[in-house]
Amino acid sequence: MSDRPTATACVLIIGNEVLSGRTQDQNLQFLARALNESGVRVLEARVIPDVAAVIAGTVNDARARFTYVFTTGGIGPTHDDITSASIAQAFGVPVIRHPGAEAALRAHYRPDEVNEARLKMADVPEGAQLIDNPVSRAPGFRIGNVFVLPGVPSIMRAMFDGLRHRLSGGAPMLSRTVSGFTTEGTIAAPLADIQQAHADVEIGSYPFVRYGRFGVSLVIRGTAQDAVDKAAAEICRLLSETGVEAIEDDPITG
Amino acid sequence: MSDRPTATACVLIIGNEVLSGRTQDQNLQFLARALNESGVRVLEARVIPDVAAVIAGTVNDARARFTYVFTTGGIGPTHDDITSASIAQAFGVPVIRHPGAEAALRAHYRPDEVNEARLKMADVPEGAQLIDNPVSRAPGFRIGNVFVLPGVPSIMRAMFDGLRHRLSGGAPMLSRTVSGFTTEGTIAAPLADIQQAHADVEIGSYPFVRYGRFGVSLVIRGTAQDAVDKAAAEICRLLSETGVEAIEDDPITG
Repeated sequence: MSDRPTATACVLIIGNEVLSGRTQDQNLQFLARALNESGVRVLEARVIPDVAAVIAGTVNDARARFTYVFTTGGIGPTHDDITSASIAQAFGVPVIRHPGAEAALRAHYRPDEVNEARLKMADVPEGAQLIDNPVSRAPGFRIGNVFVLPGVPSIMRAMFDGLRHRLSGGAPMLSRTVSGFTTEGTIAAPLADIQQAHADVEIGSYPFVRYGRFGVSLVIRGTAQDAVDKAAAEICRLLSETGVEAIEDDPITG
Repeated sequence: MSDRPTATACVLIIGNEVLSGRTQDQNLQFLARALNESGVRVLEARVIPDVAAVIAGTVNDARARFTYVFTTGGIGPTHDDITSASIAQAFGVPVIRHPGAEAALRAHYRPDEVNEARLKMADVPEGAQLIDNPVSRAPGFRIGNVFVLPGVPSIMRAMFDGLRHRLSGGAPMLSRTVSGFTTEGTIAAPLADIQQAHADVEIGSYPFVRYGRFGVSLVIRGTAQDAVDKAAAEICRLLSETGVEAIEDDPITG
């Protein structure tokens, strides 16, 4: 295990369009993987509506419980983009028009395109630091331990890549996956014994179907490579003993 | 608006594999759409880890705040499947082996395949009613206003289809989408006026890129068809006035 303390995160997906089923969220999976590479574990995610009191309350709950909070969505120019104002409300500070953000937006648009709605994208809670948007200029921001990002996946990813260096995480979670064409019910009891004997790793069991055959992927996660490798070796042995070929592969993640 | 009271729901996605980014959740979008057809609005979703205290605490919080709670994941035979026990803990009742579920599992497996791990899938909180699993027999269950479903999307969907008739919802949310090749910043101010004049609908604005061109989809949602239609007509007029063709289509949902 690592000497560095564990850093944790909560991801808040803000948007009626995800709760109505119109839009399939694509941001949680990206953030979960990218944060893990920085040694930050995502321990919770919530999808919440575009309602100021809900956003403010959820942000206040999450920022007290996790090292970092990441929000996606609701920072565009239209009436349903209320994330910045709601987060200002959560922190009890006014919304201000950030001079640097305004200058960037004015430089990005033609003079006849500049209007109040577009300039609203320069409004951030007082005390926030900007997060640069290399794609379309409208920035995100950080206030306290809360990072506010847009909902459009390609822009969110570009902005996250620019802020990763600001995060201080612990050891990244390492993982290995061993799969086999068997069923969970066949191996559950000896697998539980392996988990019990290897408390320094976390073993997850995930069924799949490939080529019309049932299989199970066993994902071993931990911060120490040797601990992960020892548990993986035991799982390979378990599969062999039940006459199943152990495949070092994950049919889901590739 | 409808005379029937609004029914609300919270979806709890239980599983380390979603929080680690290994697995892309596919269940929220299905449940959000299917519940809406039954007149139930999903107002929150949470992704939580396979940790008993977190599952129990989150279930207790959600079942007090929403008409219905739907959980997915963690009801298989392996050591990391702890949803049933955690929900029993939330309700303060013991786990019992359900005779009907045990009989169904024993009938499904060959005698030499029956083992304690597989029979664990018949364990439910005392007082729970089973939810039939037409695919692989291991049932889900309902206790109070909490519906417990598996994580495998195809099985979850089949089980949900069997329980929909048990839900009593209000009026389904109707929606129309009008799209146009423009940008949010161009139409934001008059769009806000339309939203203000049509408080009986909710208007969402979602940018997209298609054929290399920027566009915006405007989604109008409400429970009364005529209110939705009136707001949609105003939005078509707004787009026409800015020289943009209004397309009755959503590039995201098809």
